[in-house]
Amino acid sequence: MNEPTLRPAAAPVNIEPDGFEPVNFASDNVTGVAPEIMEAIVEANGPQGAWPYGNDEATGGLNAQFSGLFDTEVSVYPVATGTAANALCLSLVAQPFNTVYCLKHSHTYEDEGGAPEFYTNGAKLVPVPATDGKMTAAALEAAIGEVGGGGARLPHVMEAAAVSVAQVSECGTVYTVEEIRDICAVARATGLFVHLDGARFANAVAALGCEPSELTWRAGIDLMSFGATKNGAMAAEAVVLFNEDLEDTLSRRRMRGGHLFSKMRFVSAQLARYVEDRLWLQLAANANAMAERLSAGLSEIDEVAIEYPVDANLIFATVPGDTADRLRDAGFDFYDWGDPDRPSIRLVCAFNTDADDVDRFVEAARG
Amino acid sequence: MNEPTLRPAAAPVNIEPDGFEPVNFASDNVTGVAPEIMEAIVEANGPQGAWPYGNDEATGGLNAQFSGLFDTEVSVYPVATGTAANALCLSLVAQPFNTVYCLKHSHTYEDEGGAPEFYTNGAKLVPVPATDGKMTAAALEAAIGEVGGGGARLPHVMEAAAVSVAQVSECGTVYTVEEIRDICAVARATGLFVHLDGARFANAVAALGCEPSELTWRAGIDLMSFGATKNGAMAAEAVVLFNEDLEDTLSRRRMRGGHLFSKMRFVSAQLARYVEDRLWLQLAANANAMAERLSAGLSEIDEVAIEYPVDANLIFATVPGDTADRLRDAGFDFYDWGDPDRPSIRLVCAFNTDADDVDRFVEAARG
Amino acid sequence: MNEPTLRPAAAPVNIEPDGFEPVNFASDNVTGVAPEIMEAIVEANGPQGAWPYGNDEATGGLNAQFSGLFDTEVSVYPVATGTAANALCLSLVAQPFNTVYCLKHSHTYEDEGGAPEFYTNGAKLVPVPATDGKMTAAALEAAIGEVGGGGARLPHVMEAAAVSVAQVSECGTVYTVEEIRDICAVARATGLFVHLDGARFANAVAALGCEPSELTWRAGIDLMSFGATKNGAMAAEAVVLFNEDLEDTLSRRRMRGGHLFSKMRFVSAQLARYVEDRLWLQLAANANAMAERLSAGLSEIDEVAIEYPVDANLIFATVPGDTADRLRDAGFDFYDWGDPDRPSIRLVCAFNTDADDVDRFVEAARG
Amino acid sequence: MNEPTLRPAAAPVNIEPDGFEPVNFASDNVTGVAPEIMEAIVEANGPQGAWPYGNDEATGGLNAQFSGLFDTEVSVYPVATGTAANALCLSLVAQPFNTVYCLKHSHTYEDEGGAPEFYTNGAKLVPVPATDGKMTAAALEAAIGEVGGGGARLPHVMEAAAVSVAQVSECGTVYTVEEIRDICAVARATGLFVHLDGARFANAVAALGCEPSELTWRAGIDLMSFGATKNGAMAAEAVVLFNEDLEDTLSRRRMRGGHLFSKMRFVSAQLARYVEDRLWLQLAANANAMAERLSAGLSEIDEVAIEYPVDANLIFATVPGDTADRLRDAGFDFYDWGDPDRPSIRLVCAFNTDADDVDRFVEAARG
Repeated sequence: MNEPTLRPAAAPVNIEPDGFEPVNFASDNVTGVAPEIMEAIVEANGPQGAWPYGNDEATGGLNAQFSGLFDTEVSVYPVATGTAANALCLSLVAQPFNTVYCLKHSHTYEDEGGAPEFYTNGAKLVPVPATDGKMTAAALEAAIGEVGGGGARLPHVMEAAAVSVAQVSECGTVYTVEEIRDICAVARATGLFVHLDGARFANAVAALGCEPSELTWRAGIDLMSFGATKNGAMAAEAVVLFNEDLEDTLSRRRMRGGHLFSKMRFVSAQLARYVEDRLWLQLAANANAMAERLSAGLSEIDEVAIEYPVDANLIFATVPGDTADRLRDAGFDFYDWGDPDRPSIRLVCAFNTDADDVDRFVEAARG
Repeated sequence: MNEPTLRPAAAPVNIEPDGFEPVNFASDNVTGVAPEIMEAIVEANGPQGAWPYGNDEATGGLNAQFSGLFDTEVSVYPVATGTAANALCLSLVAQPFNTVYCLKHSHTYEDEGGAPEFYTNGAKLVPVPATDGKMTAAALEAAIGEVGGGGARLPHVMEAAAVSVAQVSECGTVYTVEEIRDICAVARATGLFVHLDGARFANAVAALGCEPSELTWRAGIDLMSFGATKNGAMAAEAVVLFNEDLEDTLSRRRMRGGHLFSKMRFVSAQLARYVEDRLWLQLAANANAMAERLSAGLSEIDEVAIEYPVDANLIFATVPGDTADRLRDAGFDFYDWGDPDRPSIRLVCAFNTDADDVDRFVEAARG
Repeated sequence: MNEPTLRPAAAPVNIEPDGFEPVNFASDNVTGVAPEIMEAIVEANGPQGAWPYGNDEATGGLNAQFSGLFDTEVSVYPVATGTAANALCLSLVAQPFNTVYCLKHSHTYEDEGGAPEFYTNGAKLVPVPATDGKMTAAALEAAIGEVGGGGARLPHVMEAAAVSVAQVSECGTVYTVEEIRDICAVARATGLFVHLDGARFANAVAALGCEPSELTWRAGIDLMSFGATKNGAMAAEAVVLFNEDLEDTLSRRRMRGGHLFSKMRFVSAQLARYVEDRLWLQLAANANAMAERLSAGLSEIDEVAIEYPVDANLIFATVPGDTADRLRDAGFDFYDWGDPDRPSIRLVCAFNTDADDVDRFVEAARG
Repeated sequence: MNEPTLRPAAAPVNIEPDGFEPVNFASDNVTGVAPEIMEAIVEANGPQGAWPYGNDEATGGLNAQFSGLFDTEVSVYPVATGTAANALCLSLVAQPFNTVYCLKHSHTYEDEGGAPEFYTNGAKLVPVPATDGKMTAAALEAAIGEVGGGGARLPHVMEAAAVSVAQVSECGTVYTVEEIRDICAVARATGLFVHLDGARFANAVAALGCEPSELTWRAGIDLMSFGATKNGAMAAEAVVLFNEDLEDTLSRRRMRGGHLFSKMRFVSAQLARYVEDRLWLQLAANANAMAERLSAGLSEIDEVAIEYPVDANLIFATVPGDTADRLRDAGFDFYDWGDPDRPSIRLVCAFNTDADDVDRFVEAARG
């Protein structure tokens, strides 16, 4: 099956404010902030002020907190957008004359407006074909085997330096620990670093019920973008470095990108609370459960087909003729997807998606 | 008088969290968030979600709000750091083979870790000498007259394209409307754009009691970084475009820099509230008033000399031998400044600086 | 048929100097300098010296000379490598946040070590599938139809700005005037510029027997890299601008790339002589004729298959098992090509290829 | 004394071809090619062709040849312009978030159209004041002592990584071995690399009569641009790496810049012949001797003042009122220099400058 393509529907871009409806399955980033995290933000606003640029207590504690979470010594750099996290990560592993393997429909390749090229000063992203929205070790190996693979010695051919994989994938599928391990093994054999785009990492960990370490450094991941924004934070992502061999220039690269916040504690407080008391996994668990419920409901409708395994919180469904219109009339929002001639929709559940809304959606879809 | 240099004191960087003291005059960015703005953030977290990436109501309203504020049609792009705002602005006015005039001790030249060079893809900042921390029209004219000025035709010499001026200046002085006008006239005569780094623009407007338009587009400013973070916001700055001739690629450049927030409404809500009901000017007025009180108090102490006119909320003072140590022992924080052999300190008052703290500081300084 | 891939054989890279043999079909760049052009270089070395950086007579005359050649007013910028010409051209038509359509196996995409990304400051090359090594208008249209095509409004998706087409193609096929026209029509309809990589433009014009203008600006080409090095020059290519709407920053971009020669007249003299008296077409005619002769000879051998139409001076042939080794033992050189399991070779004829050598090659191939 | 500034006189740029006069002291790059080198170029055009991209015999021999010349193992990369050599060198020693110390009136800072910023992807050149056109160890030390010096730990302040020094200096003065050693010692103490811009290195070595190694790696130089173009080559410079700790990515960076010539042997042949049989020093010796003769002659004229020690082949002279005009009327060419109100001229002697022309010039100046 071909990979879907998000069609930039006119609607979301030109949305009339009053046309907005309460039940929005368009993305997990249409949500607001989880109450626990908002509380942490407000609390961070103590009477005393704090040293700027990350020289505060909350930021200072992140390394220890994430080292505990990942059961190994890590370096953590908070930023505020996933694109910044991804692009900064890639700038650590790819020089301007290097290439990075990724999927064609990955966020990194298609949806970051050139940020990876910008932050790496011109490295090239090389698309690898996907299976169910995931990169396979075999596909990566084949891509490396082509000219330009890890062994390219001619200066004409850009040399491969890294692989970037998104977990959860853009199609809502989740890489198993073994799949990640296999990809990393292929990468390691060619001397490539592996970056994990974990914009929805919480959903993957919640789905697999594994330890964060198993899905990352124990499997061979060198560095990751640890997402929180899509799962209840306001604007907080963490660059997490596992591999000590990585040239640690992140601090200067983040500053140069304009991503060092003077009042950094308000970003760090989000991350600190997010990983405290397993909040991140609880929030993700709701999103995943709601997606399962939604998927189960839709599956029972004739003419509706679920396109990919619903491993986490994203659902892609082909729906009959006027279903999408009817659902929108009923007050639901979502993105169109895929080819215009085969109407398909993308539905994303979030940390705060409500079971009643899911059920009403299924009912409305049933027509 | 030479321009001062912020010495990167070991202390702030390696600060022991528990060594932090309640009264911190180090910078206006050590403060937290003004209550009104925190309230706006919390309110933005409504139950309904919002379209991401700025397609929300709060962001949608900024153009009108700022157009009202500036009494002309403007385009507004919210970002979260002043460095991002400045670097994005410069990327609109300078091609990679252009130069930009600025002061040597400006934030843009010295304190943005290469962000201007990054976002312009390699333009060169050319330092112009300062008078009382300000650029003069005459100094700019002299710099343009050197090789590399606006008329350089040889491809060897990079061509000048813009001037960047900080208002309030790094020395705490405020450009008058006329001074800005004179600089813009010189720039205009050579075909240069003029950018205003308004990280502390509120303090300047509050100090002069003039209209925002007078200090900007009416004087000849083409675009500006309109700061809010230092004056009570959490992390919010606005790129404001006055000149319609500017190539409007800001939207793509911001995305490419990783500065397009998915939950943009939380940034926009800060800006919206900040300029509502003249809140920004009230906050700045307190900062300015406290600086005046502090400066007045210090001036009366023998051996203490105030280095620059205290036009807004920054004070630079040379203090006798052990004064700085004594003040720190008393629980005050601030940055060292200038040459090590002529002990000098920088004090910054903020939107929430308290008169009692100011008075206690003066008393402690008196020794 | 899939597009072939040049395998970076160990041999050419690590060649033992004394292992080099007189008959080398590896590329047209293994040749030296045509006698007429060498003579022009020596003549340019007059006793008087000349103003540097292109302010000499030879360079000054190029605009008129090329305007005559193309039957329209053009701007010409001499450089010394094809990669510089291509990358500089692309930097005129694509901003850093733009994409450029090209073929996956084009020189621009695969063999320029990241120069296009470097000179455009990070634009992205988007591969379009090829038919017989050529881009079709239909394939371009389909690519544009995907997300990221000319109409992309979201800042997430990089906006397309240009198409780059190589004439002669990497597979040795030649675009007809009509094919170029069709591609340009599709591009124009979407607001894209069209760049022609004319490293072997002479071979295409000689093959088609048309006017240079028909294959370029009259068909809709906006700018081109006009190659001379592969066809008898020492190191000389010309950036030729047809479209006056192009922002003419080439002079500064060339300087910034380090491609402005102080003794430019020695580059310009090559170009001037190259296009004088139809020398360029005579040289190309020999290369094309020799390729035809070689192709005709090989076609008669059983088990040898010619892979693409031999429109110009390149031949791709699948040869039986040990043929390649036997030919190399006989003193011929060439690159391997395609998949290792289906042995195939690339043969390139040049301005100075000798009919006797061609005949001996065919004989040796016959075994 | 202030450093002079080359005024971009209208004349050279818009020169009428027939207005060009045989005796041109404007620069050593107005000359042609030394006969020995032209002969080597013609000889390189043998009947057999050669493997492209530097896989030829001449290029292959350069490492050994230059290792002999410098009495140590070096890596050599031929390029065709001094700007390319300098910018590529700097890209090896400075990351995008680093700074490089150099003189304000150095070629690197003022005359390379942004190439250093381009090739380093945005590093910043920091000007150091000059004494007689040279950097002193003390001035470098003072510059490092300012914020932003080698010890800067804050990400706000770009970190210094290298120093670049031109030998011969832009004012025609020559650094002694000891001066170079002192600069390198200061640099080494702060962990900075030292680059030598040796566009006129031959003139310096010829002037000092020392070994090339003494002026370079033995004194602490890490890498250099070894110029030949200004001293009799057509277009040939060599990047020479002395320090094995340098990350050796030059090959890929050169390709990415479009500076890898397919017919590289024609560049390499120039370099090979240039350093053979001490040709480079013989050529430079003539240039230096002619400058001495010219300087001696001019010194005897009242009202003419020589501005800098004439250590090599450049002379800067203040001349009375109409002298420059009179000299030009007499058929001599040269650049104006310095401030318009204090008429001063720059005279450059070259490998082929004739004693009779020098004498005629002096006579004409005498008026």
